[in-house]
Amino acid sequence: MAKKLIVIGGTAAGLSAASKAKRDDPSIEIEVFEKSGYVSYGACGLPYFVGGMIEEPMDLVSLTAEQLRDKRGIPVYTHHEVLSIDRDKKTVSVRDNDTKETTEHGYDVLVIATGAAPIMPDIPGIGAEGVYPLRTVEDGIRLRAAARKAHTAVVVGGGLIGLETAEELSQLGLKVHVVEALPRLLPMLSEEYSEMVAEGLRKNGVELHLSEPVKEVLAEDGRACGIRTEHEEIACDLVLMSIGVRPASKLARDCGLRLSVKDSIEVDDYMQTSDPDIFACGDCACTKNAITGKADYVPLGTTANKQGKLAGTNIKSRRERFAGVLGSGVTKCFDMYIAMTGLSLERAKAEGFEEADAVSIIKSDRASYYPGGRDTHLRLIFDKNGGRLLGAQAIGGETVAGRINALAVAISSGMTVMQLSEMDFVYAPPVAPVYDPMLIAASQAVKHVRRA
Amino acid sequence: MAKKLIVIGGTAAGLSAASKAKRDDPSIEIEVFEKSGYVSYGACGLPYFVGGMIEEPMDLVSLTAEQLRDKRGIPVYTHHEVLSIDRDKKTVSVRDNDTKETTEHGYDVLVIATGAAPIMPDIPGIGAEGVYPLRTVEDGIRLRAAARKAHTAVVVGGGLIGLETAEELSQLGLKVHVVEALPRLLPMLSEEYSEMVAEGLRKNGVELHLSEPVKEVLAEDGRACGIRTEHEEIACDLVLMSIGVRPASKLARDCGLRLSVKDSIEVDDYMQTSDPDIFACGDCACTKNAITGKADYVPLGTTANKQGKLAGTNIKSRRERFAGVLGSGVTKCFDMYIAMTGLSLERAKAEGFEEADAVSIIKSDRASYYPGGRDTHLRLIFDKNGGRLLGAQAIGGETVAGRINALAVAISSGMTVMQLSEMDFVYAPPVAPVYDPMLIAASQAVKHVRRA
Repeated sequence: MAKKLIVIGGTAAGLSAASKAKRDDPSIEIEVFEKSGYVSYGACGLPYFVGGMIEEPMDLVSLTAEQLRDKRGIPVYTHHEVLSIDRDKKTVSVRDNDTKETTEHGYDVLVIATGAAPIMPDIPGIGAEGVYPLRTVEDGIRLRAAARKAHTAVVVGGGLIGLETAEELSQLGLKVHVVEALPRLLPMLSEEYSEMVAEGLRKNGVELHLSEPVKEVLAEDGRACGIRTEHEEIACDLVLMSIGVRPASKLARDCGLRLSVKDSIEVDDYMQTSDPDIFACGDCACTKNAITGKADYVPLGTTANKQGKLAGTNIKSRRERFAGVLGSGVTKCFDMYIAMTGLSLERAKAEGFEEADAVSIIKSDRASYYPGGRDTHLRLIFDKNGGRLLGAQAIGGETVAGRINALAVAISSGMTVMQLSEMDFVYAPPVAPVYDPMLIAASQAVKHVRRA
Repeated sequence: MAKKLIVIGGTAAGLSAASKAKRDDPSIEIEVFEKSGYVSYGACGLPYFVGGMIEEPMDLVSLTAEQLRDKRGIPVYTHHEVLSIDRDKKTVSVRDNDTKETTEHGYDVLVIATGAAPIMPDIPGIGAEGVYPLRTVEDGIRLRAAARKAHTAVVVGGGLIGLETAEELSQLGLKVHVVEALPRLLPMLSEEYSEMVAEGLRKNGVELHLSEPVKEVLAEDGRACGIRTEHEEIACDLVLMSIGVRPASKLARDCGLRLSVKDSIEVDDYMQTSDPDIFACGDCACTKNAITGKADYVPLGTTANKQGKLAGTNIKSRRERFAGVLGSGVTKCFDMYIAMTGLSLERAKAEGFEEADAVSIIKSDRASYYPGGRDTHLRLIFDKNGGRLLGAQAIGGETVAGRINALAVAISSGMTVMQLSEMDFVYAPPVAPVYDPMLIAASQAVKHVRRA
């Protein structure tokens, strides 16, 4: 008899799992339950939908529920919320939020891909109208509508989503304040690089309030009209809460599955949870750091796709292991591009690389004599004891993405900075300098390495 | 007593060697002899000097002879041509081409960095006025002056320098014909990619004449007025000869040094020639292919710098070996960027990778829903037997450079397409799609691999 697969969650991870399972075993019967009204959407595009670069909500959707059913043979039910998992009976209880009807569905294999939920801090006023998270398409539609009527926005949280949305709101003409509890933005970067990002935002008119935890959302008649920190009050028409996400692991915890880092669902290298009939993947699950080999929590779309596909592969038979991730990422902030991969210096030390060190260089991304080059700030993190490359960060033009990708490959293959300094990179005056910034940085790093 | 180092050639390789030798041993005494009037210039910038993007010849020069002498302690003599090397007496005979005086100079160590010379085919009319090579700054000055008075140009040779100069001449307003003996342009690319390049040139008004070896330069009163192939005559005001270069290895051959591929000077992994007191580096020397381990001839600025620096390092003591090169390269042709690294499929087969195979994909370099993305054409060459990545080619926007760099690292570290398909690359809608083109291509390739 054909297997029955139930997938909870219809975005990156869940649909990658369902699609791969169906490709590997066309006889498998699948049901996907998605709580929201949208499936298969690119959540990372939401800031650009808010800003208007992306016009329609459906532009973010790569496959509709109809297409998934008709083209891929995968029935997907939106507005269907899974309320509980019964591991003994191997059933899930599902409520149709349109009809309010609850039904039981049996499974042979279950994939939990419930994603993550934006953290909404427990402060006075948090429930006021005009306070928004940005996670689902519905969130995006609400925030976009509000932004079109607003003059001033407070973005709480200086992480990737916060800064991307701050940029977009600012480009819509709003006065934007970014309020961050930590002393700096994007704390995975070095202090110096965080400050460059801060400068870039200030230069574009965004006002920064650092080391300022938000204490209260100020409201009038139930509508947000500002926020209050320890030191100041900032008036605004809307508040975006983007202080981070939490794995949506309640269903898993309630049915007794083991949890891991930050309460993400524990999975092994095959994406199996502590119950071998249940897989988990994406932002609800833990991941493996490719450098430390330890469990990590890296809620990124790239990780979700990889984990989902792997879960789908291993449903038929446990055969492919997760290679781990480096946490590679990139973001655009006005005309500044910021990218990183691997460990920061602080993180490397905390992970036991006691002799971790870093070098930072500045170098144009074109031949010095060719017009239009942009300074690339490049930082390499490496182990002085032997020279292994551990991480990299870059700020500059769009070309930082390619360089960080090259360094991600170098880190993944265990390359040393000595080896990196010998790489054969492309060169042409309009595209790159003859000594690529990566080579310059590697040669600097080599000087600090104690060779065996 | 301090060592005496003589360097023949004052551009990339020679000056890299001299600078590194001086840094490692400040007591070393150095003389650099350069035949032309310019030192330390970026020859790869010459097409852009011709086109006017780079205004002054001196913009191409990173350090003048005065700066090299005063700041680096390296005396450099321009217009000084080395006529012969006496390995027994350990002297070189040098003619000052300004005063016509010839002098003898003793050395303890000699570095030959004489570069390469453009091939000028032995056809009728080749000596006519209006026929130009493009190799030295003086060549650039002459071609630029001629281009400003010309209406029609013939570029003979569809390699990198030929196409870059064709683009620049075309942007100056000239009607440009590219005449190539082979059936296609940039033959290191796949046929399909060569055709894309051809289409890009045609779209921009450049006329192509493929499979047309040039038989004669037509001249009137000693001035070039066209060229003739077997099938046609093309009228023009100037002819650029860019059918390739030959290593300038005559001095080395005349003093009995062993030659290698294409008559380049044979060097070992330490850049030492068959005479241990003589090093060679740059476009006059052979290089090592990092994939095949065999001798190769790769006359690129990046290789020249690497080899020069290594020669400088090994003068004090033989201690660092050459890692080899992949022949990574990039070029811009109007709005099309073309990059490659490692082996082409044809080359891989010729080198004994009997089961070499290739996949080509097309994918936007941004999230599909984000405006402004450009199609990236990406081709991976790999060994079906085990999956090792052997080469890569890309055509698209400027972002192809970063992707080819990442693939160069993957090739250098011996990565398989399976490993590549698991890489953690950066993603953000304005910068890259969630499945990077490299991941898409790798997953395609994986399907063809026969695993051990």
